[in-house]
Amino acid sequence: MKTLIKNGLIVTTENEYKGDILIEGTKIEAVGRNLRVEADKTIDAEGMVILPGGVDQHAHFSFEFMGERTKGFETTNAAALGGTTTVIEFVNQEAGKGLVETVEEYRKEWVEGISMVDYSFHPVITDPTPETFKDIKNLPEAGYPTVKLFMAYKGQFFHSDDEAVTNALLEAKDAGVTVMVHAENADLIELMQKKAIANGDTDPYYHALTRPPIVETEATERAINLARFAEAPIYIVHVTTEGAVNAIKKAKEEGLPVYGETCTQYLLFNKEYLAKENFEGSKYVCSPALRDEADQEYLWKSLKDGSINAVSSDHCGFTFNQKKMGLNDFRKIPNGTPGLENRLPMLWTYGVETGKITRSELVDYYSTMPAKNNGLDHRKGYLAPGYDADIVIYNPNVKKKVTVEDSLNGLDYTAYEGFDQIGECDAVFLRGTPVVKDGKYIGEKGQGAFIKGTAFGTAFS
Amino acid sequence: MKTLIKNGLIVTTENEYKGDILIEGTKIEAVGRNLRVEADKTIDAEGMVILPGGVDQHAHFSFEFMGERTKGFETTNAAALGGTTTVIEFVNQEAGKGLVETVEEYRKEWVEGISMVDYSFHPVITDPTPETFKDIKNLPEAGYPTVKLFMAYKGQFFHSDDEAVTNALLEAKDAGVTVMVHAENADLIELMQKKAIANGDTDPYYHALTRPPIVETEATERAINLARFAEAPIYIVHVTTEGAVNAIKKAKEEGLPVYGETCTQYLLFNKEYLAKENFEGSKYVCSPALRDEADQEYLWKSLKDGSINAVSSDHCGFTFNQKKMGLNDFRKIPNGTPGLENRLPMLWTYGVETGKITRSELVDYYSTMPAKNNGLDHRKGYLAPGYDADIVIYNPNVKKKVTVEDSLNGLDYTAYEGFDQIGECDAVFLRGTPVVKDGKYIGEKGQGAFIKGTAFGTAFS
Amino acid sequence: MKTLIKNGLIVTTENEYKGDILIEGTKIEAVGRNLRVEADKTIDAEGMVILPGGVDQHAHFSFEFMGERTKGFETTNAAALGGTTTVIEFVNQEAGKGLVETVEEYRKEWVEGISMVDYSFHPVITDPTPETFKDIKNLPEAGYPTVKLFMAYKGQFFHSDDEAVTNALLEAKDAGVTVMVHAENADLIELMQKKAIANGDTDPYYHALTRPPIVETEATERAINLARFAEAPIYIVHVTTEGAVNAIKKAKEEGLPVYGETCTQYLLFNKEYLAKENFEGSKYVCSPALRDEADQEYLWKSLKDGSINAVSSDHCGFTFNQKKMGLNDFRKIPNGTPGLENRLPMLWTYGVETGKITRSELVDYYSTMPAKNNGLDHRKGYLAPGYDADIVIYNPNVKKKVTVEDSLNGLDYTAYEGFDQIGECDAVFLRGTPVVKDGKYIGEKGQGAFIKGTAFGTAFS
Amino acid sequence: MKTLIKNGLIVTTENEYKGDILIEGTKIEAVGRNLRVEADKTIDAEGMVILPGGVDQHAHFSFEFMGERTKGFETTNAAALGGTTTVIEFVNQEAGKGLVETVEEYRKEWVEGISMVDYSFHPVITDPTPETFKDIKNLPEAGYPTVKLFMAYKGQFFHSDDEAVTNALLEAKDAGVTVMVHAENADLIELMQKKAIANGDTDPYYHALTRPPIVETEATERAINLARFAEAPIYIVHVTTEGAVNAIKKAKEEGLPVYGETCTQYLLFNKEYLAKENFEGSKYVCSPALRDEADQEYLWKSLKDGSINAVSSDHCGFTFNQKKMGLNDFRKIPNGTPGLENRLPMLWTYGVETGKITRSELVDYYSTMPAKNNGLDHRKGYLAPGYDADIVIYNPNVKKKVTVEDSLNGLDYTAYEGFDQIGECDAVFLRGTPVVKDGKYIGEKGQGAFIKGTAFGTAFS
Repeated sequence: MKTLIKNGLIVTTENEYKGDILIEGTKIEAVGRNLRVEADKTIDAEGMVILPGGVDQHAHFSFEFMGERTKGFETTNAAALGGTTTVIEFVNQEAGKGLVETVEEYRKEWVEGISMVDYSFHPVITDPTPETFKDIKNLPEAGYPTVKLFMAYKGQFFHSDDEAVTNALLEAKDAGVTVMVHAENADLIELMQKKAIANGDTDPYYHALTRPPIVETEATERAINLARFAEAPIYIVHVTTEGAVNAIKKAKEEGLPVYGETCTQYLLFNKEYLAKENFEGSKYVCSPALRDEADQEYLWKSLKDGSINAVSSDHCGFTFNQKKMGLNDFRKIPNGTPGLENRLPMLWTYGVETGKITRSELVDYYSTMPAKNNGLDHRKGYLAPGYDADIVIYNPNVKKKVTVEDSLNGLDYTAYEGFDQIGECDAVFLRGTPVVKDGKYIGEKGQGAFIKGTAFGTAFS
Repeated sequence: MKTLIKNGLIVTTENEYKGDILIEGTKIEAVGRNLRVEADKTIDAEGMVILPGGVDQHAHFSFEFMGERTKGFETTNAAALGGTTTVIEFVNQEAGKGLVETVEEYRKEWVEGISMVDYSFHPVITDPTPETFKDIKNLPEAGYPTVKLFMAYKGQFFHSDDEAVTNALLEAKDAGVTVMVHAENADLIELMQKKAIANGDTDPYYHALTRPPIVETEATERAINLARFAEAPIYIVHVTTEGAVNAIKKAKEEGLPVYGETCTQYLLFNKEYLAKENFEGSKYVCSPALRDEADQEYLWKSLKDGSINAVSSDHCGFTFNQKKMGLNDFRKIPNGTPGLENRLPMLWTYGVETGKITRSELVDYYSTMPAKNNGLDHRKGYLAPGYDADIVIYNPNVKKKVTVEDSLNGLDYTAYEGFDQIGECDAVFLRGTPVVKDGKYIGEKGQGAFIKGTAFGTAFS
Repeated sequence: MKTLIKNGLIVTTENEYKGDILIEGTKIEAVGRNLRVEADKTIDAEGMVILPGGVDQHAHFSFEFMGERTKGFETTNAAALGGTTTVIEFVNQEAGKGLVETVEEYRKEWVEGISMVDYSFHPVITDPTPETFKDIKNLPEAGYPTVKLFMAYKGQFFHSDDEAVTNALLEAKDAGVTVMVHAENADLIELMQKKAIANGDTDPYYHALTRPPIVETEATERAINLARFAEAPIYIVHVTTEGAVNAIKKAKEEGLPVYGETCTQYLLFNKEYLAKENFEGSKYVCSPALRDEADQEYLWKSLKDGSINAVSSDHCGFTFNQKKMGLNDFRKIPNGTPGLENRLPMLWTYGVETGKITRSELVDYYSTMPAKNNGLDHRKGYLAPGYDADIVIYNPNVKKKVTVEDSLNGLDYTAYEGFDQIGECDAVFLRGTPVVKDGKYIGEKGQGAFIKGTAFGTAFS
Repeated sequence: MKTLIKNGLIVTTENEYKGDILIEGTKIEAVGRNLRVEADKTIDAEGMVILPGGVDQHAHFSFEFMGERTKGFETTNAAALGGTTTVIEFVNQEAGKGLVETVEEYRKEWVEGISMVDYSFHPVITDPTPETFKDIKNLPEAGYPTVKLFMAYKGQFFHSDDEAVTNALLEAKDAGVTVMVHAENADLIELMQKKAIANGDTDPYYHALTRPPIVETEATERAINLARFAEAPIYIVHVTTEGAVNAIKKAKEEGLPVYGETCTQYLLFNKEYLAKENFEGSKYVCSPALRDEADQEYLWKSLKDGSINAVSSDHCGFTFNQKKMGLNDFRKIPNGTPGLENRLPMLWTYGVETGKITRSELVDYYSTMPAKNNGLDHRKGYLAPGYDADIVIYNPNVKKKVTVEDSLNGLDYTAYEGFDQIGECDAVFLRGTPVVKDGKYIGEKGQGAFIKGTAFGTAFS
């Protein structure tokens, strides 16, 4: 089966040019100026932009958090429709169980035969025993070359102290496993939350006020110090604030292998969203908390200068009803905001169209770099011969608004409701198979495949 | 009673000049070029250097640590002989007891009627309850305008987590109470100690290897972040390493009220002392651990540029026998090194005589600044009319070596044994009363008085 | 002759305390709490503040600049009345004449027998020949341990290029001579002035617009680079802007001997003063130009943190008539602003009374440090036994406004006209002789003496 | 005419993969995995590395410098053999003549019909009149979107003072013309050269000693300050030392559009080369001077972190005989070192093979970035469909040594004589035409074409 996409604007991290792409089976076969090939199917992409399929390195499905479980992989058609052809999911270790074992059980139960896009996993350490740390060296062979720890959430089973984070770093470095951390100072949050509740401050807005930027900055600096001690690479997930970016920047200048991502919502929303009436603010309760506009601008700049190397969604599909668990106590609102399908169109609309980033940079942040960070770049992230034919044909001429009616996220709301959207995925190919056509999802459950990551990702370079 | 000290080289933080000092009762009455006064007693100080009596803001007496108690205030004649006329002692809070209450009980039991020099106290928070934090505001009136917390020592009763440190900072700032912290990352030390013991590495030298500089640097940076969050001044005790100094420096440049001291041993000893044979290394087990020569040089420079504002002794009078508790496990060696009597002569010998610091700077670091840091500068730290007549007549012409025979520390060793010493305290006056004469202690037990500190010390300026 | 000043608040850089000062002849004899001395004259200073006489290290008298000559030493009674008992004057080298020779001729012609306060000199290099540079080593013996060069003023005879500045630095360092530079980029000013005039922008305000902060920042950074190359100390005169301060700060952090002063007008005025109507703006034409309020705040902070160590007047006594030379071309307005008599009262009013600086800091910036910078601290800058009895009795209870009627500057205006003034010099002693009494100048022409500076001032420490 | 290059390792700045490249006429037509195309000619590139042709943005031909003229464009076969298919030449303005006019006359006389590779030009301002500055806006249309000024060389006709550099920056920014500067402090060099000659120090080694790193660091900082003032982009040519790199780095962090290149010789040689016997050191007399090994290491790192974005040759073809002009005075040695043909193989050997840089980075520094910097990236710098078929087939399996016998530089020596070389250009295509085959030059004189640059290059992004 040969598919020829003709006359699109092909965008890579290196440059962009008008040309054709030939798909043969599951792979990209050729790119050229005027490919004279007999294809089974030819698509005229004149006026369209051709991008590699997106890689979302930070997403949650069927994720149990604070007693509630998010929507699962049955909603990953939303990813496909949003141009994301690969997602990486976090799996919390079960106490007493190995990391590999936990993930593989989870994969069988919740993912295989369900996912509509390709997928990989980040095991999350929750049981800091010597056995757990020893298990880290087994991760690469199983295809999970990352491990995550939560520095936040004092008193929760998945909270890790500095000793655990450091043990992970020490074990991971030789194995080529990238340690990822959620960096917030658990103690300071605890202190502020107690004070807020004691004052009767229970609204969602206090979620932001009790997790001020210093909470993240401190923990990021500390995480980097632990990595410095361990002489190990580290990756900071969902960086949201100037102080944390600067910590990463400073570390880079010293030559330390320190990297980080941010998420769509931190680029687009500010903390005033948590003040929305009728408890609507709860939809924007995610951790770290939303920041101010100045932080948003700083994050855009930090992408440009390389301080932050990827944009993820940190997608969490909690319904509004689930959010209402915290009606009387913001601490009980399940943390997380949906955004799986919005990542590409929002980056395009508020990044490319505003001139904040170039198309080539968009490709880097949303596809190429996440692929490299997680050892998926032997197959994902490039529009070049030999790579998986994960291809987005983006129509930049569409102008619409985000609505829950158009959404496939399985929820009763979208976080980006009413936002302007320029462009949409006109067509998406997953390993050569069309899964989006004419802006509609046309794929099937279970089409996604597990992609094994290889060790020694970006953080080791 | 009038005493006239004639023709000495009077040294203040401002300058030095040849002159006379007139003591009347407990106070300095006048300084002049050629005071023509009828005095009860006249001392010819030609060739001598006149310094204000030293203030040692960090010393331990009758201090119970790791199950062992140090020598007590009955050994403070060593302070007097070493030119230190005021000491400030740390008192661990007893669980369930107030800070003021604990200190006052301690004072009555262990200090009053015993101390040979003037004294004040730092309460140490060990029981982080709301009541304890509320008690902070009572400290100034009781004359204890500082409070200390230990970030090190994971699992020990006196260890404080970030929440406790921050609560202290929040309470202390309005009361003008200076929060002091022992800044070491407890988790990293725990991790390294476990690894060392698991490897059979039990010698004193591993005390240093399991507390590398990053352990202090990280905690110092974190402490400053907590102070930044609390918008409160903070004072870092016993700073030993470049990274920690730089954290203080950076904070100062941002305009934050962050201050720190170092100690004599960190200026003079390096970590190879812990490798001394026959368990002699245990005498140098103190925390933070001794560092390298480069750190020593950096500390001298940090005094010059104001990054560090005082030199203390962190005196701990454990006998060699007590040290032997840790013969088979360095973790059990009581931490602390004696140096009460050596502070002034060592600073003179290795600072002034080598050209590293000037005499005026010596006065600042060992007397004036510690007085100001702790709200004692209404009486201590100056050679000027109206101040307590705590005066050292230092004879810079003596050349000798430090020996345990000459020591009054009450122990079977000195840490500085065999070190060259240039100069000695020929005479010392404590509030006008001679306590050292011809280089010998001539005072009496109980001559020392409690000096109430006033709130809003240096850290608030 | 003995004079006893009783019960004043004696302020030194170290501290302040209530006490008495005894003057005997030209020297301070004693300070004490309650000096029981038979004096020829006793002054009750209850409620008064006692300060050391001011040292103004940057002032111009009989100075020929842009074809006009400022008022001369016959107006130094203004200094005395303003609490300044020593001034240091700049003397431009005459082409072909030695530095020492030029100064001594100038001294005889314009200063001796005229000055009402003590004085010293800075030779200014204008003829960069090998002979001139060799003459630098003769300066200390003659008592002039500094030398100045102008980096500004492209095309003027006193402009120095980088080669000249560097030659001076190389020669001066071994001789202990401090090189001072006026740091502005002459080329950039030239470029902007040409553009302004070409545009018909001739008003005084364009003086500021054609000398923006970068002009000073660049030259300051360059001067420091030249000093780095020469491995020599350097002193930057009249620092006015954040960028220049930061250059000094950064150099200090690297351990380089780089120092600077600012001037009263840069702390109090902003560049909008140049926009005053009726050509009044010309009175504020000085170089560097006045800056913005943010710079003023930064300068106050830079004094506090030691980045800048002194406040001078850069006094220039040009009449309004002389200023009018530039009615149609701001480039022809003689540069310089009068302020000799205002330095102390303005620092008191806008520094001490507003809480920006302490009294001890005021003493440091206006007297002690300038004395040390210029090797005059063997006699000047201290209220301590043995020093010159240059003493100011400042009455902080007076509240008035600055008026030209009260001024002794010999001009038809004051720059500070109408400014609030808190306090005034009630009495001033010049080497023991009263020159101000009850707020009035009572001295005589020629009472001032030449004070020889010693080499190796502050910049060498 | 179709040429198919099969099975090579195609290297781009983005990634590398095994594939085929189809050339049709002068352009790249397609890249693919297994292109099934009927080509006129098929080349098996198994085991070979395919790179885009090099762009050397800094080279001198027929360049008159210090009275001597370098070899001209008749030696650009050396470029082709070394994998460089485009060179950019500097042309000194003739006094009284326009920039465009000067270049076009030069082009006709010295380049057209001669050059064996494609070419473009940088006009050099030497006559800083208003007319010259106005001519800058005409450069883009003529296809020369850059202009260069020399801050070094005091007293020479091509030296520019700060006023000239700033005028150029002010004019160039709106026109999209990139200002390039040779940044060395002319005064400091003059001073040191005079001292050296006065001391009888005439050997080539004194060329390095009289141009120490600070000379470059200062001028680089100053150039950036001028650009900051002018709010214009700036490009620093031949950056050689840590201080200069840091100045660029700091500017970038502030968000300023400041860029720079280094040259092959600064990465490979150190200043001891100037001490070679028998006047051989003169071959290494180039400006800035060669540095120390630490600088070399720093430069490699600065490429990696993006502080420096390109590697040029700064090729100057002076014969040894010409160099001997300075036998008795190093100041008279014509400055410049040949290296046109060595850039790619030396970067490969000492960069890629040692692991200092990746193959993708090599492509970026030697081809893609120089193309972008100079507005040539619409045709040059990429191995992608539609771009000029400038292609290097590099054989990495060759191991040899650099010898003058193999050189086409037209001189009696090479600077890299005896250096190990890994790999060589097995074949090179210039716009589709083979000019190197089997490692030999097979092209013809005059095959090179003028490539018009477009305005608003990298420095404006």
